[in-house]
Amino acid sequence: MRNAGTSIAARDIVVFSGSAHPALAERICGELGLELSPSRITRFSNDCLQAQLLENCRQRDVYIVQPVVPPTQEHLMELLLMIDAARGASAAQITAVMPHYAYARSDKKDASRISLGGRLVADMLVSAGADRVLTMTLHAPQVHGFFSVPVDHLTALGVLADHFRETDLTDSIVVSPDLGNAKSATQFARLLGLPVAAGNKQRLADDRVVIDAIVGDVAGKRAIVLDDEIATGGSIVELMDRLSDAGCTGASVACTHGLFTGPAMQRLRDHPKISEVVTTDTVPAPPEWHDLTVRSTSQLFAEAIRRVHVGESVSSLFDGVDPTHAPPQRTLFEAV
Amino acid sequence: MRNAGTSIAARDIVVFSGSAHPALAERICGELGLELSPSRITRFSNDCLQAQLLENCRQRDVYIVQPVVPPTQEHLMELLLMIDAARGASAAQITAVMPHYAYARSDKKDASRISLGGRLVADMLVSAGADRVLTMTLHAPQVHGFFSVPVDHLTALGVLADHFRETDLTDSIVVSPDLGNAKSATQFARLLGLPVAAGNKQRLADDRVVIDAIVGDVAGKRAIVLDDEIATGGSIVELMDRLSDAGCTGASVACTHGLFTGPAMQRLRDHPKISEVVTTDTVPAPPEWHDLTVRSTSQLFAEAIRRVHVGESVSSLFDGVDPTHAPPQRTLFEAV
Amino acid sequence: MRNAGTSIAARDIVVFSGSAHPALAERICGELGLELSPSRITRFSNDCLQAQLLENCRQRDVYIVQPVVPPTQEHLMELLLMIDAARGASAAQITAVMPHYAYARSDKKDASRISLGGRLVADMLVSAGADRVLTMTLHAPQVHGFFSVPVDHLTALGVLADHFRETDLTDSIVVSPDLGNAKSATQFARLLGLPVAAGNKQRLADDRVVIDAIVGDVAGKRAIVLDDEIATGGSIVELMDRLSDAGCTGASVACTHGLFTGPAMQRLRDHPKISEVVTTDTVPAPPEWHDLTVRSTSQLFAEAIRRVHVGESVSSLFDGVDPTHAPPQRTLFEAV
Amino acid sequence: MRNAGTSIAARDIVVFSGSAHPALAERICGELGLELSPSRITRFSNDCLQAQLLENCRQRDVYIVQPVVPPTQEHLMELLLMIDAARGASAAQITAVMPHYAYARSDKKDASRISLGGRLVADMLVSAGADRVLTMTLHAPQVHGFFSVPVDHLTALGVLADHFRETDLTDSIVVSPDLGNAKSATQFARLLGLPVAAGNKQRLADDRVVIDAIVGDVAGKRAIVLDDEIATGGSIVELMDRLSDAGCTGASVACTHGLFTGPAMQRLRDHPKISEVVTTDTVPAPPEWHDLTVRSTSQLFAEAIRRVHVGESVSSLFDGVDPTHAPPQRTLFEAV
Amino acid sequence: MRNAGTSIAARDIVVFSGSAHPALAERICGELGLELSPSRITRFSNDCLQAQLLENCRQRDVYIVQPVVPPTQEHLMELLLMIDAARGASAAQITAVMPHYAYARSDKKDASRISLGGRLVADMLVSAGADRVLTMTLHAPQVHGFFSVPVDHLTALGVLADHFRETDLTDSIVVSPDLGNAKSATQFARLLGLPVAAGNKQRLADDRVVIDAIVGDVAGKRAIVLDDEIATGGSIVELMDRLSDAGCTGASVACTHGLFTGPAMQRLRDHPKISEVVTTDTVPAPPEWHDLTVRSTSQLFAEAIRRVHVGESVSSLFDGVDPTHAPPQRTLFEAV
Amino acid sequence: MRNAGTSIAARDIVVFSGSAHPALAERICGELGLELSPSRITRFSNDCLQAQLLENCRQRDVYIVQPVVPPTQEHLMELLLMIDAARGASAAQITAVMPHYAYARSDKKDASRISLGGRLVADMLVSAGADRVLTMTLHAPQVHGFFSVPVDHLTALGVLADHFRETDLTDSIVVSPDLGNAKSATQFARLLGLPVAAGNKQRLADDRVVIDAIVGDVAGKRAIVLDDEIATGGSIVELMDRLSDAGCTGASVACTHGLFTGPAMQRLRDHPKISEVVTTDTVPAPPEWHDLTVRSTSQLFAEAIRRVHVGESVSSLFDGVDPTHAPPQRTLFEAV
Repeated sequence: MRNAGTSIAARDIVVFSGSAHPALAERICGELGLELSPSRITRFSNDCLQAQLLENCRQRDVYIVQPVVPPTQEHLMELLLMIDAARGASAAQITAVMPHYAYARSDKKDASRISLGGRLVADMLVSAGADRVLTMTLHAPQVHGFFSVPVDHLTALGVLADHFRETDLTDSIVVSPDLGNAKSATQFARLLGLPVAAGNKQRLADDRVVIDAIVGDVAGKRAIVLDDEIATGGSIVELMDRLSDAGCTGASVACTHGLFTGPAMQRLRDHPKISEVVTTDTVPAPPEWHDLTVRSTSQLFAEAIRRVHVGESVSSLFDGVDPTHAPPQRTLFEAV
Repeated sequence: MRNAGTSIAARDIVVFSGSAHPALAERICGELGLELSPSRITRFSNDCLQAQLLENCRQRDVYIVQPVVPPTQEHLMELLLMIDAARGASAAQITAVMPHYAYARSDKKDASRISLGGRLVADMLVSAGADRVLTMTLHAPQVHGFFSVPVDHLTALGVLADHFRETDLTDSIVVSPDLGNAKSATQFARLLGLPVAAGNKQRLADDRVVIDAIVGDVAGKRAIVLDDEIATGGSIVELMDRLSDAGCTGASVACTHGLFTGPAMQRLRDHPKISEVVTTDTVPAPPEWHDLTVRSTSQLFAEAIRRVHVGESVSSLFDGVDPTHAPPQRTLFEAV
Repeated sequence: MRNAGTSIAARDIVVFSGSAHPALAERICGELGLELSPSRITRFSNDCLQAQLLENCRQRDVYIVQPVVPPTQEHLMELLLMIDAARGASAAQITAVMPHYAYARSDKKDASRISLGGRLVADMLVSAGADRVLTMTLHAPQVHGFFSVPVDHLTALGVLADHFRETDLTDSIVVSPDLGNAKSATQFARLLGLPVAAGNKQRLADDRVVIDAIVGDVAGKRAIVLDDEIATGGSIVELMDRLSDAGCTGASVACTHGLFTGPAMQRLRDHPKISEVVTTDTVPAPPEWHDLTVRSTSQLFAEAIRRVHVGESVSSLFDGVDPTHAPPQRTLFEAV
Repeated sequence: MRNAGTSIAARDIVVFSGSAHPALAERICGELGLELSPSRITRFSNDCLQAQLLENCRQRDVYIVQPVVPPTQEHLMELLLMIDAARGASAAQITAVMPHYAYARSDKKDASRISLGGRLVADMLVSAGADRVLTMTLHAPQVHGFFSVPVDHLTALGVLADHFRETDLTDSIVVSPDLGNAKSATQFARLLGLPVAAGNKQRLADDRVVIDAIVGDVAGKRAIVLDDEIATGGSIVELMDRLSDAGCTGASVACTHGLFTGPAMQRLRDHPKISEVVTTDTVPAPPEWHDLTVRSTSQLFAEAIRRVHVGESVSSLFDGVDPTHAPPQRTLFEAV
Repeated sequence: MRNAGTSIAARDIVVFSGSAHPALAERICGELGLELSPSRITRFSNDCLQAQLLENCRQRDVYIVQPVVPPTQEHLMELLLMIDAARGASAAQITAVMPHYAYARSDKKDASRISLGGRLVADMLVSAGADRVLTMTLHAPQVHGFFSVPVDHLTALGVLADHFRETDLTDSIVVSPDLGNAKSATQFARLLGLPVAAGNKQRLADDRVVIDAIVGDVAGKRAIVLDDEIATGGSIVELMDRLSDAGCTGASVACTHGLFTGPAMQRLRDHPKISEVVTTDTVPAPPEWHDLTVRSTSQLFAEAIRRVHVGESVSSLFDGVDPTHAPPQRTLFEAV
Repeated sequence: MRNAGTSIAARDIVVFSGSAHPALAERICGELGLELSPSRITRFSNDCLQAQLLENCRQRDVYIVQPVVPPTQEHLMELLLMIDAARGASAAQITAVMPHYAYARSDKKDASRISLGGRLVADMLVSAGADRVLTMTLHAPQVHGFFSVPVDHLTALGVLADHFRETDLTDSIVVSPDLGNAKSATQFARLLGLPVAAGNKQRLADDRVVIDAIVGDVAGKRAIVLDDEIATGGSIVELMDRLSDAGCTGASVACTHGLFTGPAMQRLRDHPKISEVVTTDTVPAPPEWHDLTVRSTSQLFAEAIRRVHVGESVSSLFDGVDPTHAPPQRTLFEAV
């Protein structure tokens, strides 16, 4: 009877990438010392998609890397079809590696008769054949419970913190754009030994939200604004105005999922008070944004895949980083 | 104990339309004497979609009209989210009305490790909450068996035949572009009392198919070319060349699902030998193609919905038209 | 074709109560003009439970009223067994009416390898046969997405607000014990036209949390402390200390689910600064707490059941009250 | 709100019969005042079966009458195909009416690695689309729990008792062939006011069982032997020998399911001590056995269907008869 | 191609224990040469439970030992939550080791509209994530069929027989309290080479059963009373009275599951005719009952787990003992 | 990280055979160097079946060989029961090896309210516990999509082609009895370097089909008639008449599944123009047909099982043979 130690991996790994972010998949494979296996997405003349996996999957552990990023529906369908193809090809176990699960945004019924996309897409992935999900920084931790299969939920906070530890943090303060999501900012501040503040969002109308106040003292300080996802960057710009009003001297902006859609690049890159934008490679960076700082999460994903594969604990990968696996954390305003 | 007669419909109907083809939904509602109920599709800044139904669905029979047409993935996701919203809103029964189920094209494993989109999407629709499917002219009749819920499978052959019955059919012949799908053409020919011929497709390479011969005598005849779906129109144009070679004098082109993507309109409208293109409104027609003949299927869908709702037989709607419900049919070359 | 108006209820209603809170079930039935139907819970000598429903359920809409309150496991098992009995007895539709769904507390993986009770119990209820859930004030709105059946999620905010509208609200302020759950407090303040403040929880160790600061200006004001559930009352007492420190003159305490376990009654009733405790009857009140103010939710549950039954919108029941169905709401600190 | 009284049946009934026992189906329809609806079973040249229902099923309550009798596999497959056809035809609710569920015999794992046919077939019926099962006298009451859908489990004891109440019961005694199944005999004796005895089965080898003793005093008495199912009649003949040895003067034989396969008719009809064999029509009687007494269960099935349909209690149909719905019953040897 | 021999266990084992009976879990682990892995059950202030497994489960075979004993609902919920935690932690396979599955008592519908707890709890265990069940001496063998996952059903008869083989069995007779469950007693008598007798239960009222007679000759003999489960001991005491009446000289009492709730210890320990009570450790023994004889089943469970793990036959573990795997058995009264 | 190469088979294989075709199972085992494991099918006196597997299945890969041939329902039920037994015996993975899946014939709704046996039986196999299906030459390739588990779909075309490659093919032509299924004939012709022709079926009435014409030039040629399944042989005989009319000089007949039911042997063996009938052993050959040429598929099945087991690609087994895995194929009439 063996009880201690690590199980021997009896099966081979095969890693595929959809078309959303092959560069990340390549990096993950590089870290694992594997070749990324080829696949092919065909578009019928009626715009339907078909996926073909060009490497044997039989009795193997298949990982399909695909962040759900714009064009979101195309990439989601690709992922579903690839999972289906792997299942039909007798994969032993299929892991959907979604560095960004964008549909987590749709996590509650905040109006009558609306869809709950976060749960629906979770069910669709399982219905297609996913046995496990590997993802990073879900919009709300409860989204974990939308999946009926195991989810390994990674965090990029350590990766982002590593960046700022290399900079001068004197008089810095971590700022969350939204009080409602201030938990990550608090944890990030703790990693950096900094105080924390937060913007307060006010909803003016159904489709219009403004940030009307800053909670916490930012006067004379340099902000490190932290968000989970930045799309158009509108909230960040608005937050910058409030921070300026409150006497903040400048800001770095950090986020896990840097989509930077529409006017985002121009807004953030050209903003006089923003000295730096830091993000990760869970989603592809805008190719023309040359001075964007991108920290790679590929090592984290590779190590998580390795641990999943050999049966080691993934949670211990984030001791001291991920709040869901870590020792007691300090609170939002403790350093204020 | 009541045994004969028709059940009384105890529940109200609500009909919604996705954004793929609201005009058809309006027409169907018009036939039913109902108002189309409003809904709203919202796009988050990260490109995720959210559906909201703006009419009470509780304990009602909900019908959601959405052909799966380009942009296919967008329209499919809309449909799934609307079904999810209806289920969450306690609909008594949800019918996905897909006048064109484009993913039926992906109906067999004709290469190693490919996805089977026709089955996967069927499972996703059921997983989202669809209790029934109402569709027209599936690419292959076996696709019916991909659904684990009841499917009412309508045919547009009667509608198309009505058009040609109003024309001079002297010396006409029905032509199928492909021997493999010649059954519908045979049936259509029977409805019109005409002979039938077929093109013979030859696959030159993985991605290249040519029509290299015409089976049946078309010399001196006017062809009525019949296909289930026309996308780019490439096959039709090629068939026209072969028909010309074989002495055919001209052609009408008819199809159920007239997608007319890319160069299709120009190819067909401007073809010297094609005098007329006839299609139905299961998918939206190109707005700039003014002389395209479009016969409406709205009456068929409305009548099918009515029969579903009051519990009458839908199949009897196609007595003498739909091969799957009809008396014995004559064969492909009987009139040759 | 009927499209407007309300469907005719073709089925009878039967309402049962588990042993957790028969008084509430009686009140709901009273509002509906129905008799509560009898049932019997038997305990085998080996401590297993058995449920028997003593009214015919065949083809009827069955509602089983049971808040999941201490002894929680006993009451949960009763509910599951009653659902199972109703399913076996051919009920047409079974609604689990859980005025308090306590397992919603277990909504995220905040440590390695922990259970996710909120999702597990949701799955068990569905596995037992529940077709729908009717509940009030879930701990987090995302818990809605843990259920694969429709959930009607009511709010008690209107009921609690009605109480305070009858009192003098001069110089009052609504206070949330936790910034993380400040959304309900904000909404409650809006209903009463009052400002809002919040305590800031700091976690000292795995099992110890303190409130270390008050965000917002409470000096010279009378607090209306609002929480979703009060169990031992420890957080409230601690919040009172911080409020006193900050110059608050006194407080009313309000909550939807007043469990008041262990020392709660003594702590709150005897606290010198707490003039009043207001709760609802989603859970049974401690019988010996005579001056506890209990507002009934029975009218809301009865009206929701009536609307579910006849197919009217439930969400419209909370126009202007429930944030998930309401027009734009004002923000946390707008009145500060 | 309606609470008392009976729901109005909003749907029509359609009753079909497989080929196992159309006469019973006709009788049930006669009792209900309905026409039996036609269906057609086709056998392909490769021996596969296909079922077609020749009456509209849409939105109706479909009942398919088919006892699972020899040739068992043929009749079971017919039933499954008819259920599948009804589901595909949009039946509102499908009830498998199996007057004899023969696979109940396979109810436990009494050897290593054997199939559990009772559960497997139950799952197959549900997988095919059965929403409910209506059956009679299952081999063991636990088999009820093999079905994941509601089961209405009728008893023929009342029907059989009616027969004997018309006869002279002086010095009669009810005898069960097996102590293990003596509960029904006890209950039957109670209905007739008679004492009860039982044979004791001894297993000699894997495939050989003998009855070696009679428990209870049968000397000078006339036995009424009661069994649930009689197939070859071997056990009954053996029991008769033991009864003779014990001084029993003669016997009537009664059973619910009279299959009478192989030599059964000859053995029982010609047995010098057996004066009468009484059975029911849950299965077809051997046509050449003219003096077999067959009591019809059609009224019971018809009344159960009626009650299922209109939503009345089925269990109350057996007040005082069915042990599972009845008041306290007396015990096995109380009259000995 | 390997065909003979034993598969190599590629995965590690992890064994956890709920709080019901950690001593047994320790013993099983001792037999296996493993450490019992730690876990933690937390009770929220609202009485909800949360389970945390404190050992890595990823890709391992997890066994959770928990007899479902009083407080039954608490222990059942613990088990469900631990299974859920193991599934979420990516266990390769989860076995619920329930030495006593108390809900097997609820195995049939013996009244209208009652729950069927034995099936419901089986479904809940599977719904939570159990892949297999390991249990002992189910109340009825049919309960096996309530589970949709494989069940390894052990017997303690060999363990109990070992005890009596060490005693003087002259003039002894095995007695079953109930004719209905006499099969185990018969088998036990065969193992010991003894005759067998049985009590005859009579139901006086819904809630009152008496034993009114002894079937078999016990005069001048010493009884070994065998039951599957003893809770309050009421039936045993009553049986003792009847045995005394029939001339029995004294008794040993043996059972697999010795719950001994309420007055059981006092009743049995102090009964003048009962010289000894023998049970097993499937459930915890009352700590204050010092002269209770408890035989351990830990070796059986450990060996079964070992065989499950390495892929050897479990049934062969009971050759000659377990009736469901054994050669022909002798009958109830053969030795009378 | 291992990425290239083949996984090590950690589990043993066990192969069982139902009673349909043990000779084939023996041959497959012979190729694999394994012993066929014994099993036992028992028929209860009420005609129900029970399966027992007489070899340990625990944690092993179980293959059950059973073509679904007449008596079809018996053999299908055997297969289902054996799968159920293997699942209950804790098999690691169960593959239903169905060399002939006869129910594939029932693949579309070609009449109102008919069953769809191909899908129903697929669902039943999965419901019983099949994890994978291994089959050969399905009637239509879409039937693949009826299964929710992976299907390995083999072809016998290579085996049949090997036979004809050994013969003189001068002036030969491959003939398909039906234009609708001409794809296989085209592919077969390509393998042999021969032209192809086809019969044209005309449906006279619901139950009567005639072949009324030959498409392609067969005058002066020797036909190789190819069909997927031959049952009564009626179509072949009729085709022979048309071939004679068209000047064909004689024929060989080849098919994958040679059922040869009813008059088939006499019709084909004694036909003056048929010189040879070639089939495979997917189904048992009529024992009295001594000069029937039977090519074995056992090597293909054995190799597929070996590849499934060790995780190699099965599709590559048919490079150049199976159209679904092969390079571009030439068309039907290209050689005409």
